[in-house]
Amino acid sequence: MAEESQVMIGKKPVMNYVVACLTAFNSGAKRVVVKARGRSISRAVDVVELLRRAFLKDLNIEKIEIGTQEMSSPDRPKTNVSTIEISLAKKE
Amino acid sequence: MAEESQVMIGKKPVMNYVVACLTAFNSGAKRVVVKARGRSISRAVDVVELLRRAFLKDLNIEKIEIGTQEMSSPDRPKTNVSTIEISLAKKE
Repeated sequence: MAEESQVMIGKKPVMNYVVACLTAFNSGAKRVVVKARGRSISRAVDVVELLRRAFLKDLNIEKIEIGTQEMSSPDRPKTNVSTIEISLAKKE
Repeated sequence: MAEESQVMIGKKPVMNYVVACLTAFNSGAKRVVVKARGRSISRAVDVVELLRRAFLKDLNIEKIEIGTQEMSSPDRPKTNVSTIEISLAKKE
């Protein structure tokens, strides 16, 4: 198992991603990075808050970064979408 | 004008909040704190990214905090809602 694991947040229920994070930590990941784009950003925050409050009391939010990603496709004009990355680690 | 100004993100178009942040800085605020709850969290990130990329190139994201707020009302059961606070300052 790699030291760092990533969980990309999509449109599934919040609990699915909470379980994904728990599984990553239980498999030995030292850090889990929760990533989301656009409308899923709110859900990413929900996932981290639920994880921190209900499942892993010793969870530490190491870093929160926001950014912009350019989305381009032949079918539509270029658009910008906001992103978030929340780095989580268990307290030592 | 106070040193710190707050902009609460709701359901209006992103540009409305960008203008509110610009107005706060132009009125002399040293720091602007962008706050949002629930589904508006994504919009808060959109506001900050647009502000940073298109309007204030010298904007510094000082801190991003996430949390949970308990909402209670006589009409419905108690629920938790995620929150975000993004502290912005112009670079010296």
